Amino acid sequence: MDKIYNFSAGPSVLPEAAMKQAQKEFLNYRNTGISVLEMSHRSSVFGKIIESAEQRLRKLLSITDHFQVLFLQGGASLQFAMVPLNLFHDKTGQADFIDTGSWSGKAIQEAGRYGEVRVVATSEDENFSYIPELDRGKCNPNADFFHITMNNTIFGTRFTSIPTTGSVPLVADMSSFILSEAIDISKFGLVYAGAQKNIAPAGLTIVILRKDLLGRHMAVTPVMLQYKTHADNKSLYNTPPCFGIYFADLVFQWIEEMGGIHALETINREKAGLLYDCIDNSRLFRGTSRKEHRSLMNVTFLLPNEDLTKQFIAEAETNGLIALKGHRSMGGLRASLYNAMPVEGVKKLISFMGKFDKKN
Amino acid sequence: MDKIYNFSAGPSVLPEAAMKQAQKEFLNYRNTGISVLEMSHRSSVFGKIIESAEQRLRKLLSITDHFQVLFLQGGASLQFAMVPLNLFHDKTGQADFIDTGSWSGKAIQEAGRYGEVRVVATSEDENFSYIPELDRGKCNPNADFFHITMNNTIFGTRFTSIPTTGSVPLVADMSSFILSEAIDISKFGLVYAGAQKNIAPAGLTIVILRKDLLGRHMAVTPVMLQYKTHADNKSLYNTPPCFGIYFADLVFQWIEEMGGIHALETINREKAGLLYDCIDNSRLFRGTSRKEHRSLMNVTFLLPNEDLTKQFIAEAETNGLIALKGHRSMGGLRASLYNAMPVEGVKKLISFMGKFDKKN
Repeated sequence: MDKIYNFSAGPSVLPEAAMKQAQKEFLNYRNTGISVLEMSHRSSVFGKIIESAEQRLRKLLSITDHFQVLFLQGGASLQFAMVPLNLFHDKTGQADFIDTGSWSGKAIQEAGRYGEVRVVATSEDENFSYIPELDRGKCNPNADFFHITMNNTIFGTRFTSIPTTGSVPLVADMSSFILSEAIDISKFGLVYAGAQKNIAPAGLTIVILRKDLLGRHMAVTPVMLQYKTHADNKSLYNTPPCFGIYFADLVFQWIEEMGGIHALETINREKAGLLYDCIDNSRLFRGTSRKEHRSLMNVTFLLPNEDLTKQFIAEAETNGLIALKGHRSMGGLRASLYNAMPVEGVKKLISFMGKFDKKN
Repeated sequence: MDKIYNFSAGPSVLPEAAMKQAQKEFLNYRNTGISVLEMSHRSSVFGKIIESAEQRLRKLLSITDHFQVLFLQGGASLQFAMVPLNLFHDKTGQADFIDTGSWSGKAIQEAGRYGEVRVVATSEDENFSYIPELDRGKCNPNADFFHITMNNTIFGTRFTSIPTTGSVPLVADMSSFILSEAIDISKFGLVYAGAQKNIAPAGLTIVILRKDLLGRHMAVTPVMLQYKTHADNKSLYNTPPCFGIYFADLVFQWIEEMGGIHALETINREKAGLLYDCIDNSRLFRGTSRKEHRSLMNVTFLLPNEDLTKQFIAEAETNGLIALKGHRSMGGLRASLYNAMPVEGVKKLISFMGKFDKKN
């Protein structure tokens, strides 16, 4: 079989080097005679794995000691509740949100169940095809936090600058953004990311938060949803998703070997640039998001009609280019170009699109 | 290297057949050209995997259509909150508990934050070395649920009969019990289990609950902690722990091939019988739990002093018998004999214990 290129939005393609290493030591982790899957999370061997994963991530993102790094479960969807439950002041919780699509919407809705939530900017008027301007005058200086979704997996947009929020802690969902380009983590109060795009298989969630934000959770917060529980226990309060953490460590190592975030950002810009150019220069394809806010990770585009879209997806699949269907709420096409997608995959896609454009 | 036998209480040894199958198709799942780790949870291929896992589990445990099967995250520790949040009537929640050790204790404490909790029986007086008798007269007929911990991983005890609770739904933590012996699931309102003992790697939690218990959660319950959210979306509300679900399916298949639960129970009784006999017939070793309540999965035992205990653990390790240290809250020794531990492993342990007993 020819090489398959997997453009899934998540779970998604993982670095080949990490996959091969994990397969190689799957039954016998570094001469321990047992698998990482079978290892007590309190064993010294696993202790070294989780410590290595944390230290590598800290280096890759220049995370200082003012921040706690947590390895959790439940995905970004659980963070939509954990963020307000942990950051809202009991009974008087307030937060500002920028609404840039489905995931922002879910975060807004869940936070609204625990406090007063205001949407201070939205791009709903144009189907979330851009990142709205923020009018600082509209922001609540007493908000407990200010929330953005850095990259919008469904609508193919991303923040290209970090909003200024003064003393209000900035919280960002970075699920489909983290480790794809350089970012100054110190400007955020809290960052969270489901791992299943740029980090590891599904089932691991990474949270990076300022230590001074720990321990102020609302009274109703379950022990397992209190960041402090996990911070006090170095993410080992209960059994963590061990294999995901191990895999994350392998991926962080691969990123180091690739030259770090700046090197990856260069490649990611090249990949996205090639694909957007192909779209912009085609007869048939049309990008859905404003050029200045285009996502580097999720390229969303359309064909003139539903029949051609279906035909494209089917023909692409026969050519080894899979998972190009847009999100069910958006339709059209989407090519996710996470870190592990090689330039060759994008080139193969472009070549196929070129032929499709000529032929139809 | 000689074969290693891993007696860890969890994460723990997994069936060799499942491990080898997972390794074999790690890079390329059944000719799809991609890994299970890289597959969209909404793909038809993954859809078949999660459906297969559910159907196999239903058959193995004879789970009827009155019950919902959920694949979740967060471990039993998150269930300590989810159970009361989903089963307590708002503001007037009441529940009865039998306290059989650490894990029961944590469940009691967490439920107590959301309603009125009563401990109707406890074995705390003798360091949880037995399962207390239940005086039905003490039980609250208006309780929203009645909670037990079926097998106590730390104290090495297990329920050998199911308490009668009338119309009050019986809830059981079956983390270290599920699939180890035959049990009538229809007698329970809700059963939960962290997967990392008898099912899959850490990061997957299985919940089996009566459908009529869905949708009565407390108002403060986060969307992600509502069983209804996951039931309505067939465990695909957000990205589930895909690899764990895939692995569970392989383990369920292995159990089928072994002859089902009854066949495994026979082997488990044999394994535990061999080890308890060895302990009872030794000079040095002493079991910690009452014979009639002894766990089949976690055999807890002691040596006369700390020095011998340390010596035993160290010498066992050089002999390829690992993770025999008791839980930090209990001390002593513990051999976990989950389904995947072969009889040969227990025999090797017994042979080593015999020599140790003679020598010291």
